[in-house]
Amino acid sequence: MVTFGTDDLFTAIRSVPDFPKKGIVFRDITTLLKDAVAFRRVVDILYEKYEKVPIDKIVSVESRGFIFAGPLAYKMNIGFVPIRKPNKLPAETARKEYALEYGTDAIEIHKDAIRAGDRVLLHDDLLATGGTIAAAADLVESLGGVVVGMSFLIELFFLGGRKRLSSYDVFSILKYETE
Amino acid sequence: MVTFGTDDLFTAIRSVPDFPKKGIVFRDITTLLKDAVAFRRVVDILYEKYEKVPIDKIVSVESRGFIFAGPLAYKMNIGFVPIRKPNKLPAETARKEYALEYGTDAIEIHKDAIRAGDRVLLHDDLLATGGTIAAAADLVESLGGVVVGMSFLIELFFLGGRKRLSSYDVFSILKYETE
Repeated sequence: MVTFGTDDLFTAIRSVPDFPKKGIVFRDITTLLKDAVAFRRVVDILYEKYEKVPIDKIVSVESRGFIFAGPLAYKMNIGFVPIRKPNKLPAETARKEYALEYGTDAIEIHKDAIRAGDRVLLHDDLLATGGTIAAAADLVESLGGVVVGMSFLIELFFLGGRKRLSSYDVFSILKYETE
Repeated sequence: MVTFGTDDLFTAIRSVPDFPKKGIVFRDITTLLKDAVAFRRVVDILYEKYEKVPIDKIVSVESRGFIFAGPLAYKMNIGFVPIRKPNKLPAETARKEYALEYGTDAIEIHKDAIRAGDRVLLHDDLLATGGTIAAAADLVESLGGVVVGMSFLIELFFLGGRKRLSSYDVFSILKYETE
């Protein structure tokens, strides 16, 4: 048996300076993803966190969020709901705009993807300022869903997302305290 | 035990006329994804197809491809490699342009994602004309990888993608013979 701790997961992340722009250190998960042991470990940690929580659906934000949300849905034996950028989903959608550093962005969910009372786990790969996941939670709640947790592989703690999401149960595997 | 055959999977797909434009029937997989039994069945069918094939990595194209490639990587205990639209991957990439109906598009892969001799399974949700997956195969092969299979949830058979990909082992779960 291979033991693979959080330190090994940190090591598996590649830090790329000045991407996507000068002064930003990009935490690149692709070096973790291609490592079968690290990939498996992330799914197992997420599963262990939620296996005793009653959850009906996992809702995830494109596109990196899908990578771990899929295996988690499979392992938890629940359905998967994608939240996507505008005009990608073909049926009737709910849309939520949210602020970016400059300007706004928007995400959409199919209106029939969530039933009133559905217990939902939200997942994305990265928690930064929390704008996207807060918008995702608003969408789920607007359809009558209950957000029972928010899960991330990486949390950029210094950006304050957790504070903004204080009304939710927020879980992250790898916390970066400083940039 | 729930038995869930291919007919049930067809039924779980929603057909949306005139999306993304007039005259196109869009095969919407979100209605399948949110159904826990259908979701699991798709992963299990893909796994059964490849479980005895030596495969080192699954390579998938954003973003819908990621949804089933993730669980398959987990279940097969192999690494996952994303192919993405330009300027999303932060480290050194190989890029491939390919023709669309009007104009061109491009996809990228990290150069260090594939090692020479890696046996690769390509996965996407949909096989249409095959342009994207052919470009993905070119990228993998340019890095020394060997494409041992191409897998899809849906194949739009009437668009001829399979013929174009005749040098590869192409597998799809749901074939639409006509539009």
